[in-house]
Formats: sequence, structure tokens, C-alpha cells
Amino acid sequence: MSDIKKVVLAYSGGLDTSIILKWLEQSYGCEVVTFTADIGQGEEVEPARAKAEAMGVKEIYIEDLREEYARDYVFPMFRANTIYEGEYLLGTSIARPLIAKRLVEIANETGADAISHGATGKGNDQVRFELGAYALKPDVKVIAPWREWDLNSREKLMSYAKEHDIPVDFAKAGKKSPYSMDANLLHISYEGGILEDPWAEPEDDMWRWSVAPEAAPDTPTVLELRYERGDIVAIDGETMSPARVMSTLNEVAGANGIGRDDLVENRYVGMKSRGCYETPAGTVMLKAHRALESLTLDREVAHLKDELMPKYASLIYNGYWWSPEREMLQTMIDASQEHVNGLVRLKLYKGNVIVTGRQSDSDSLFDEKIATFEEDAGAYDQKDAEGFIKLNALRLRIAAKRRR
Amino acid sequence: MSDIKKVVLAYSGGLDTSIILKWLEQSYGCEVVTFTADIGQGEEVEPARAKAEAMGVKEIYIEDLREEYARDYVFPMFRANTIYEGEYLLGTSIARPLIAKRLVEIANETGADAISHGATGKGNDQVRFELGAYALKPDVKVIAPWREWDLNSREKLMSYAKEHDIPVDFAKAGKKSPYSMDANLLHISYEGGILEDPWAEPEDDMWRWSVAPEAAPDTPTVLELRYERGDIVAIDGETMSPARVMSTLNEVAGANGIGRDDLVENRYVGMKSRGCYETPAGTVMLKAHRALESLTLDREVAHLKDELMPKYASLIYNGYWWSPEREMLQTMIDASQEHVNGLVRLKLYKGNVIVTGRQSDSDSLFDEKIATFEEDAGAYDQKDAEGFIKLNALRLRIAAKRRR
Amino acid sequence: MSDIKKVVLAYSGGLDTSIILKWLEQSYGCEVVTFTADIGQGEEVEPARAKAEAMGVKEIYIEDLREEYARDYVFPMFRANTIYEGEYLLGTSIARPLIAKRLVEIANETGADAISHGATGKGNDQVRFELGAYALKPDVKVIAPWREWDLNSREKLMSYAKEHDIPVDFAKAGKKSPYSMDANLLHISYEGGILEDPWAEPEDDMWRWSVAPEAAPDTPTVLELRYERGDIVAIDGETMSPARVMSTLNEVAGANGIGRDDLVENRYVGMKSRGCYETPAGTVMLKAHRALESLTLDREVAHLKDELMPKYASLIYNGYWWSPEREMLQTMIDASQEHVNGLVRLKLYKGNVIVTGRQSDSDSLFDEKIATFEEDAGAYDQKDAEGFIKLNALRLRIAAKRRR
Amino acid sequence: MSDIKKVVLAYSGGLDTSIILKWLEQSYGCEVVTFTADIGQGEEVEPARAKAEAMGVKEIYIEDLREEYARDYVFPMFRANTIYEGEYLLGTSIARPLIAKRLVEIANETGADAISHGATGKGNDQVRFELGAYALKPDVKVIAPWREWDLNSREKLMSYAKEHDIPVDFAKAGKKSPYSMDANLLHISYEGGILEDPWAEPEDDMWRWSVAPEAAPDTPTVLELRYERGDIVAIDGETMSPARVMSTLNEVAGANGIGRDDLVENRYVGMKSRGCYETPAGTVMLKAHRALESLTLDREVAHLKDELMPKYASLIYNGYWWSPEREMLQTMIDASQEHVNGLVRLKLYKGNVIVTGRQSDSDSLFDEKIATFEEDAGAYDQKDAEGFIKLNALRLRIAAKRRR
Repeated sequence: MSDIKKVVLAYSGGLDTSIILKWLEQSYGCEVVTFTADIGQGEEVEPARAKAEAMGVKEIYIEDLREEYARDYVFPMFRANTIYEGEYLLGTSIARPLIAKRLVEIANETGADAISHGATGKGNDQVRFELGAYALKPDVKVIAPWREWDLNSREKLMSYAKEHDIPVDFAKAGKKSPYSMDANLLHISYEGGILEDPWAEPEDDMWRWSVAPEAAPDTPTVLELRYERGDIVAIDGETMSPARVMSTLNEVAGANGIGRDDLVENRYVGMKSRGCYETPAGTVMLKAHRALESLTLDREVAHLKDELMPKYASLIYNGYWWSPEREMLQTMIDASQEHVNGLVRLKLYKGNVIVTGRQSDSDSLFDEKIATFEEDAGAYDQKDAEGFIKLNALRLRIAAKRRR
Repeated sequence: MSDIKKVVLAYSGGLDTSIILKWLEQSYGCEVVTFTADIGQGEEVEPARAKAEAMGVKEIYIEDLREEYARDYVFPMFRANTIYEGEYLLGTSIARPLIAKRLVEIANETGADAISHGATGKGNDQVRFELGAYALKPDVKVIAPWREWDLNSREKLMSYAKEHDIPVDFAKAGKKSPYSMDANLLHISYEGGILEDPWAEPEDDMWRWSVAPEAAPDTPTVLELRYERGDIVAIDGETMSPARVMSTLNEVAGANGIGRDDLVENRYVGMKSRGCYETPAGTVMLKAHRALESLTLDREVAHLKDELMPKYASLIYNGYWWSPEREMLQTMIDASQEHVNGLVRLKLYKGNVIVTGRQSDSDSLFDEKIATFEEDAGAYDQKDAEGFIKLNALRLRIAAKRRR
Repeated sequence: MSDIKKVVLAYSGGLDTSIILKWLEQSYGCEVVTFTADIGQGEEVEPARAKAEAMGVKEIYIEDLREEYARDYVFPMFRANTIYEGEYLLGTSIARPLIAKRLVEIANETGADAISHGATGKGNDQVRFELGAYALKPDVKVIAPWREWDLNSREKLMSYAKEHDIPVDFAKAGKKSPYSMDANLLHISYEGGILEDPWAEPEDDMWRWSVAPEAAPDTPTVLELRYERGDIVAIDGETMSPARVMSTLNEVAGANGIGRDDLVENRYVGMKSRGCYETPAGTVMLKAHRALESLTLDREVAHLKDELMPKYASLIYNGYWWSPEREMLQTMIDASQEHVNGLVRLKLYKGNVIVTGRQSDSDSLFDEKIATFEEDAGAYDQKDAEGFIKLNALRLRIAAKRRR
Repeated sequence: MSDIKKVVLAYSGGLDTSIILKWLEQSYGCEVVTFTADIGQGEEVEPARAKAEAMGVKEIYIEDLREEYARDYVFPMFRANTIYEGEYLLGTSIARPLIAKRLVEIANETGADAISHGATGKGNDQVRFELGAYALKPDVKVIAPWREWDLNSREKLMSYAKEHDIPVDFAKAGKKSPYSMDANLLHISYEGGILEDPWAEPEDDMWRWSVAPEAAPDTPTVLELRYERGDIVAIDGETMSPARVMSTLNEVAGANGIGRDDLVENRYVGMKSRGCYETPAGTVMLKAHRALESLTLDREVAHLKDELMPKYASLIYNGYWWSPEREMLQTMIDASQEHVNGLVRLKLYKGNVIVTGRQSDSDSLFDEKIATFEEDAGAYDQKDAEGFIKLNALRLRIAAKRRR
């Protein structure tokens, strides 16, 4: 454990990563650089500076990454209508590659030879952090304390904290959520506690970002989203940055009881786990993006995207954002968005996201003259359908004659 | 037009197919056999008998196909979590292969050499009827009057009806829906009218099978669905046939404002079209089936199903139910359902289908001992994760060393 | 048939397209523009000028498109290791989009409102020409004489030619091949005649571009191909243009008995057909490209390409070169080739293409230090494999405990 | 290391597994059961009995598994036209699941709690053995000595052998192949030595199962293979068991210089490696099976098989034979073979496998009446093609009108 000289730690300022900070210094005899990022988790990051300073850290990185996160990670993912296993909007997964990238960049800047994180050995996050780090800095050392140390119970952690003068906010610790939680601009997640029984319904007071549909207003909220090349650029006529799009949608959708999900997912490390998620903005974005694509995307392009989406979602879920196969798929997905320009009108009401209109002046492929049930003035020749059907049936007819 | 001796007509008893009936006799000088099926469209089929008799038809088939439809078409399709273009539950598409099959069987029984239907030359239904018919009876003649005749306006139709003494229910005709509608046990659909503008919101009074979420009860309805091999076999402990499962769910879900969809879809014949659909039971079934699969299906099986689903959905949408490729896929889908046994608990509330629990005594792959955030008594060795990550990262590291 | 004013005809100068030329003038009373291209079919194109002039054509286009064909069509296709139904190298399919594009461009230049071609109503080529034309000039009229006229036998054609003073080269007609043939830089194809019996072996004297393996030299030919971004840029150290790469490889591979294929394929119009093909250069290019990719492509990128290749091949076979889905896939394929740089050494011998070496100084992902069976000085830690296997096995073990 | 009481060892009788045998006894203090199988590797298995007895083994399993191997593993795999990364016929991969299954069955019979094998920690075989074992007996212990011990050089192995009186056949050891080799009924493989340089050509005397094309007879060999449901059941009219089909084809194809492959592959554990393979029978089987499928398989079934094949091949390569996803795919593949019945005629000549005919009395979908270039008496109406093309072009035309 003696080779490491300097390690960059993904540091939240909380108790666990404070213990890790101390443990790294002690176990590896190395210097620790802390990195704390605001990716929209809804908690102040500045307090982490004082805590790190109090623990003697000399190199402290505190950064607001919300715009980069929304623009370069969340938005590209939504261009693909990404959803894992039919339900999960990948709110945790998509935040990890950015953290991994910054850990590596800071390691390069500070001359650190290792990075460290607070993810356990059972989950997906360790994989996402480490695959990203290895892909970007192949010789980096990764220290995952939860896989190494013996502080594997709450008691041992508390006693370690006490022993090493790590301040414990007992008030906070006392009312600690029974759930393991994680949040960023895209979602907040809940695992553990009673959720470990998939038959048990989560308690009402678990949810934090949205009201229950029952508690949402009786009057719907109507929104108009403007898209350019597959990304939302304005809400109700007001141009917004990606992060502001997301915080705005989180607020209005959450207030309308939108975005709760409760599911059992398959982790990359091989087990099933139960998770509850609140993804208000993401829920709206998925529905609205599909609606605009339905108007502006060629059929076969849309179908090809749909066929590849599960693969793309798995790559992100499993931690392969920084892989050549994800980048190759992204090239194709981004190319498909050239014409995804226009407006989507939505109604938000007690948990429902209802599309009430979609339009695109320049890029709609909806041709009313052809689609109409009325006279179409020759735009479409119904007689063409006979040949179309006959030749599509030909192989079936030959087979039927031979075999049936 | 003189070769045809006898034709089996898919006959609803309505004005349009009554005109077709007469037109077939006149244009082809052939005998017409009528076939009218109850597939859950919610209208009596017996009146069609009197009408056909009144028009001199000698061979009249009137059948209740609801159970066959639910059991052999709808249920197999839902085993695949089928959804077309991310939104459409294929309510029209899945009913057509059964009609096609019965048309062909009746043609064989009655010695008819042709079949006929009332679908237009612009839509998908003509394709579905005819591909099915050709696959099952390769030398059958298909007569699609809408592609052949010149009765291409409402006026011409009415005047043809008048001229040939076809009774027109003017009361009904007067209050005719502005929409083109189609219904069966799985859904009711609306096309045409103001829906031809994708920016226009459908009027409230268009919807027939569900209340608006706003008008749904303030108290949720809780349901428990029991599955065997991927199919629902009981609701709230009461064993039910497939068709009764569907009518029960239609009723309760529709009353809770569930199942409305408003979308733009890509037709097989090459155009985009706008459709609105009410699929109360189907909306519940999709959500609940996925929930039980999340507990009982192996990860890679689930992912493979997800990757193939869009293809399977397109096959059904495009009319290839009676094709060897659909049958081949079905073999695989059905095989995957062996362990999809158990219970799903749902809450229905104002448009929302909320899964609140899933369990499977015999077939759950959720292992609480492994998944737990608490001490797991060695069920899972966190140290294994290091090797797992290292080898999954190996190719990325080699590439990074060479190239970055 | 009176609306057409001017039509651009894909004109070979042969008897059939000369008859079409006359027939178009007569049937449509329109002016005809001829377009004749050298795409490496191995026949002079200039004689077509005199023939067209003799028939009174005023606008005559004769073009050498070999470089454009090789560079913008054949090479991009080979970047994907494209092969249709496991056997066919798409030699006919890939030539059609270029012809379609030039027909449309010439129509635009000459103010023509229609195009015409000599492909029959049974084959794939009509589809390829017409889909391309419609995609590039959506309002173009397409005239496909073989689907329209009644000159559906050799006798009627000859009598039409005689009647209209179209010169017939009886010497050539007399020794006419019993096969329907088509050639370009990528291949020569044979259909019809005895090939219509799939049990019949083609006669030895059918083949034109290659010797039989039995007749090839007893000494192998060794070649070194240099690739840049997936394309061959030099042979045996000599830099060459794409078309010259192909003609060079056709010559040397054909002389070594390489490139014959005899197969039954599934046409897009629904029937199976037998075809024989000689694709000497293409056979070498496919094998060599894969060899270099095996060294320079990431595993998952290569696998994704392999999974999408059949789709991409079908798009080209079916005539969808000028479609957004093909363009989208091409974006991804081209992006994958960034690192496909290096050398491949081949041995050609009596029908065999044998890869004897592949190297890439800058882009190889083959790491001898890790791959070695000898001591690897810690480049790879064998203990990592245990965790890798354990976690990959976890879902299998959980299922086995529950179910077996 | 003391928990293990009895271990079943995959024992070849050679030096390495003899050392493992001794090392297991010593390190684990456990009893060893040996298992030696004839899977067509071309070496006697009976001598392993004497060697095991000499080392004091009490439970010795020696089995001839050739028929089971060919019938239940190789043949099912070839039904899918399986090929990994475009080149590799999976000769090693497909043998491992059978060994894993027998190891587990013998463990169950003998009450052993562990299994052991001689595969290294760098390769794919460890994964294949262990995933299979874990899937079939989830609580089995797996001992992989090469990942555990420190005998990581030839010298240490020899000195361990000497120290423990393990007989070393020095004659054999002296002329030891410089390659790491593995053989079974499907192939023989070579890795290591000079092959670790992908630019180096293998030496002529490396190859053991085939002559060089240059050394093959000047006269071709003609063969007729009869298939039933996708499997070869007779050669030249003589009915044969699966294993005899393979040994017969190995002999005749090897004598004609067929089946050599030299490639760089991507291992599951993350590295690229060079391998040379001789797969005479397999090379013939792949080509012939495709030929018969080209005649008897529906187009869309064939295409779907082609699209899924790379996934299926990866599953086998990576060791997931005993997984639910492989079993699910197999269900579909097997279902597709119902009509793959008939004859294929081949010519083998100096490395070439040339299909010269394919026929199927009952199951051919090749319809000469429709495919013919001659008059078809109305079997196919060329006019149908116009509507077919027009509707397939519709989406392209709409897009072109809007956008170009």
C-alpha cells in the first residue's frame, strides 16, 4: 500500500467520504486531493471546502459542473430516447462519466497517481467510475476503500470517525434516511431499507423531489418546448441553457407529481436490485423528444434508433460512456438529430405527461395532403398498394404453396 | 371481373360494408358470404345477420371470437412487451390476423375463391388482411373495393346506397363521428378530422372508453394480477379467462383515466399519420408484465427480448403475423416466459399505473441476501469486483495507452 | 402517356436499350437524352455515341465514372465488410445508386421530367434505380419499359428492331451468351439459362473474369496492401487511386482463380434466384480488410459492426443507398475506420486468399506483452480473472440455486 | 485451502495435468477424481488410466464423448452458421461446455465439492469451464491452479515434477511443439511461439490436420451431403452418425487442403490474441449448410438468423453455452431448421469448398416458374413492381420534397 503518493478523492463532504479521506492518508501514507462537484444534487458544495481544510487537505477542487453535465452528458443521452430495461432513466449512470473524467484531469493537473471514490463493491457505480478512469488514464491506480477496508458496519465507521476526530453531525446522523440516496440534476434515487423487499410499497415520505399525484394541483400545467437538433433550447418561448432547462422542468414536473419510478433492475455485477427514482425533468424530456421525432424523423431511422437503444442504454448503465463503441453509436445518434427541430406542447397533470401537439415548420415529414382521409387530389395512388402487397406477399405465397 | 364465383366479405353490418356487399354482387356477379365477428368492439353483432339476410345473403357467419382473440393474439403479443415506435400498443394491428384467418377458413369451408374487406388503399389494414390471407391461402383472390371503385366520396356512397336500396340509418349518419374509428377488446382508435393537424389537441368528447384523468375518482384503485407463464390468469384472486381479464381491466382502468394515447405513427405504406387510442387494459398489462419480468427474467434474456421487440412490433404492425419470422420469434418469446409466474400489485389513479409490488415465490431471481446494503454474511465477495472491472477495462486501457 | 417531354435513358448502346430509345420516342412522343457510363464493365462506351447519334439523339452523355464509383460507393461499402446473405458481395447493387444519381442530375441539367432504364419488372435493379431517383428527385417520372410494353419475347424485340431500322449485330446476337450478364469494376454476374436449376453446375466457359482454380498458376502470388482509414491506398508499395486498386486486384486475383461465387439469393421483390458472380478484387478486399480490423479495431466496435452489417447489406441490396438510414449507418461505419491503418500481406493461390500477416505501427491494439504465453512481467494479473468470472457467473448461480 | 474434500480434475494424462493432480492433493489435502474424455482430439485416452492409477487415484473416469459432442454441441451450433468475428469456427469454445457438464455430473456422482482444470488465467477456457460449472452447480468450488500457484515457468514445473516423482516423457518433452495446441473433433488450434507476432507467417510444419493447398491432389473430390432439419445425416448416400460425419469430412477436406485459418481474435478477458486453426469438417459444413438454407429458408428468417448470429457466436465464445439466453436463441434457431432438408453437392479442391448444386424435393422455396427470365405464363405480374416501388419510395419522396 506504499506506492501511492497522491490520490484524488471524489469528496462529498459527508461523513463517509471524510472517513475515506482519513483512511487513505493513514493506510497509504499519501496526500489526498479532494474534488467536490455541483452536478445539481441540491446541496451546497462550498461547505466541503471548510471540511477538507479542517482535515488538512491542501489541494481542494470545488466545481460547478451543472451546465457541462446537462449539455454533454444528459442531453446527448436523451437524443437516443434512452431507457434501461424499459423503465430506468439512468439518472445515476450518466453522472458518473463526468466525475471520472474530472478525477482523471485533476490527477493529471496535480500529479496524482491514483483516484479514489466512495462506491461500494456491490454496485454499478464503482464500475462506472473505474472504467471511465482506466479509459482516460490507463495507468491510474484506483482505490476503492469499501472493497479494501474492514470498516464494514455503521458501528465500525462511527468508531473510526471518533478515533480520528472526524466530526459527526449527530443531529443529521440521527435522522438519517433509512435509504441509500443519490442525486443530481437528472434524478434522486433511493435504495435499501424496506425497498429490499420488492413486494413492499415505498413509504410516502421517502420521495423528496415530487409530490404524490394525489397531492398535485387540480389544474394542469401547459408547457411548450422548443427543440433544436434534438435538444430543448427554450421553454414557453424563453431561451434557456441546458441546466436551466432541466431545473425548470424538474420544478414544474415535480410539482405536478411527475417522474416517480419504482423498479427492479439488473445490475452489471450480476444481481437484481430494487430502486426508486424521481426523474421529473427526464420523464418529460423522454416523452416530448419522442413526440417531436415522430414528426421529423424518417421511419427507418427511428426504427434503427429504437433497435439500438437498448444496447446504448446498457453501455451507459454498465459504465462504458468512455468507450469507442458508445462514441461510435453517439456519432450515429447525433447525425440522426439534424432535423429534430420544432415545438412540442405538453400538459402536465397529476403524474401524467400528455402530449397535446407537435409541430415543425421546416422539418415535419407529416404530409397532410397524403395522410388525409378526404380526397387527396392524387397525392397518393391507392392502386399502388396492390402491387406493394402482392410483392411483399410473394415469398409467403410461394412457401404456402409448397408447404401448407 | 368475371372469374370470381364466391367471395367472403368481412362484414360489419354498417353502411360501408353493406355497400361493398352490393357492389361485389353487381361488379363481380358473384355470390357473397358475410362474416361478422365479435372481437370486443362493443357493438352487437347479431343485427348484422338481419341486415345480411335482408340483402339476400345465403351464407352468414356470425361469431364470438373474443376468447380466441385475447388468448391467441393479444396475450402472446404482450409476452414480448410489444410497443410500436415507443408509444402504440398495436390495438388495430393485432386484430387483423385473426380476421384474415377466419376469412380464409370460411372461404375454404364455403368453396369461395375470393375474400374482400372494407379497408382503404392508404392504410395498414389492407396490408394486414391481405398478407394474412395470402400466407394462409396463397391462391386466394383479394378484392379491395376502396382501391377499385370510383365511390370515393361520401356523396357517391350515399347515392349508391340510395340507388340500390341499401338502408341508411340517417339518425346515425347525421350524428356520425368526425373521426374514423375502430374498436376491439384491446382498444378503440380515432383518426381523421381535426387529428390530421398534429398540432391540434383532440376534443374532450372524442374519447369513449376512458374518462379524462381530471374526471377520474380521487381515490386510487388497487389491483393484484396473477401471472402464469407470462399471462394474467387472475385478478384480485379471481381466476379469469383471457377475454374476461381484458374486459375487466378495460373497465377499471378506463374508469381511472388510464390508456389514452395521442401520437404520430409511421404507416407501412410510407406516410406518417396521426392517431389517438384508448387502450386501458393494454396499458396496465404492459406495465405489470414488465414488473413481473423484472423479478423473474434473467438479465440477458430480458435484454435480448428488448432488443428484438421493435422488430417483433414492426412485424405485427406491418401485417406479418402469419409469417415464418414472426412465428420464429414467438417460439423464443414464449420459451422465455416459463418462469414469469407470480403476483403484481398495482395502483390505478387518474391516468397513472403505479406498480407497488411484485413477487414470485417459485421464480424470483431477486436475492435479498446478495442485494442487501447491510451485512450479507459472505453471500457476495466485494473483492471480486476488482477483477471484474480490471478485465472489462483491459481493452480500454490497451487502446488508451496506444492512442491517447 | 403524353405528359412526358424529355426523358434521360440509361443507355448501353446495345440492342435492348436501343429498342427502348426508339420505343420511348414513339410511345411517349418525347425527346430522349442518353446517358452511358464507364463503371468498369470492360466494354468501350464511346461506340454508344455513334449509335445514339445515328438514332437522332441530340443530348448524349458519355462519362467515365470509374474513380467516383470505386471511391464513393465500393470503398465505403467495404469498410463495413458488407456481404449479403453470407455470400454475395453486392457487385450489381452498389453500382445502381451512382447511375440513379447521374440520371437525376442529367435530368436536372437538361430539363428532363423523366428517366428510364432497361431493368425488368422481376429483378432488384428496377427497385434500386427507382428508389434512388425518387429519393433524389421526388417528382421525377420513371419509365420502365419492360413493365409497360408488350415486347415480352426475343422474337417481338427483333421484329420491333427490324421494323424501326434499329441495327442488330447479328454476329453478336448469334453467339449471344445464354446468360443474362452484368459487369462493373466490382464484378460480373450471370443469371438465367441453365442456372435456373439450382442443382445444375455452371459450365466452365461461362466464367469470364477469372480462371478456374485448376487452371491458375502453381506458384502463389504474394501481395501487400496498405490501408488508410479502412481504404486500400497502395499495393506492394505503389500508391494507387481507388479504381486502379480495383483493376489491379481484379487482374491478379482473377489470374489466381479467385472470386467465383455461385449462390441462391433472396430478391427484394420476393423470389429466390440463382446467380453466379466473379468478384476477384472484392474477395481479396473483404478478407484483407477484416484482417486489418482484427488488429486495429476495438472488440466491441467490431462486434457492433458485425451485428449491423446484415442490415446495412440489405439496405444496399434492396436499393436504399440514398436513404437516411443508410447514411446514418455510414456515419457510424466511417467513424469506426479512423484507426484502420496499416499493412496486410496476402498469398493468392488457386482460389485461396490467405492472410499471412497484418501490422499497424500506430494503431495496433495487439499487445504482445499481455498476449504472450510466456512470463509477462506483471502486464496482466491472472488473479483478476477469478473476480471477472465470479461476477459474470453471479446471475447464473442465483438462477441455478432457485430453479435447478 | 482446507475446506475442499474431493475435487474432480479434467485430466489429460499429460505432464501439466499430472502436476496439477499432485499439487491439488498436496495443497488442498483432498482426494482427486480424474476425468478424461475422448472428444476427438486424436490421442488415446486409455493411457490416462494407467497414469492416474500410478498416481494413486481411486476414482477414474474415462469416456468416449465423441457422439454426444458432435450431436449436442457441434451440430446445434452449425445450425446457426456460427462464426466468431467473421473468421473463427469456435472449435475450442464449443467443446468446453460438455467438459464442464461432465465435471459437474461426476462431482455429483462422487460427492466431490470442487472441480479443477488446467486452463490459464489469461485465456477464454477458464471462463468457459467455470461459467458452465457455476451454471450447473452453483455452489461448486472451482480450483484453477494456474491462477493460484507459483509454478509459473517451465523450469519450476519440471522441478516440481521431479521432486514429486511425476514421470516426464523427456523424449516427448524434448520435441515439444513450440505452440500451445488444443484439439477435438472440430478442430486443432495453435497459439504462442512465433504466432505472437501477427506479421509472422506460421511455419509450414506447424499444421497437422490438413495438407497445404499446394500439396493437395490435382483432382477435385466431389461430395454429396444429405441434410435433415439442418443436420448432415448422410455423405454420398451413406447414412452416418454425427461424429462419423465429422471424422469423414475432416479426413477428406483435410486431404484437400481445406480448413486452415490464421487470425487475430478478441478474447473475452480483454486482449487480442493470434491463433491458427485447422477446421476441415467445419469449413465444409458452414458452406454447405448455408447453401441448403439459401434454397429452403424464408428470406426474413434467414436475415434474422444472420443478424442474431454474431450475438450467438459471442455467447459460445465467451462461455455462455449454459445460459438462458443461449438456450432461448437455440430454441429459435432449431425451430428455423424444420425445412432445411435436402442435398448439397460440393467440390473440394486445393483449399476451396465449391458448392456445385443444392436441391430439396419437399422444401425448396426456389420457384423456377417465377424466377425464370423466360416467359412465366403469368406466375408473376411485372406491373406489381411499380406499386411496390412507389410505396417503398413514398417516405423518401416526402422527405426529399421537404428538405432537398
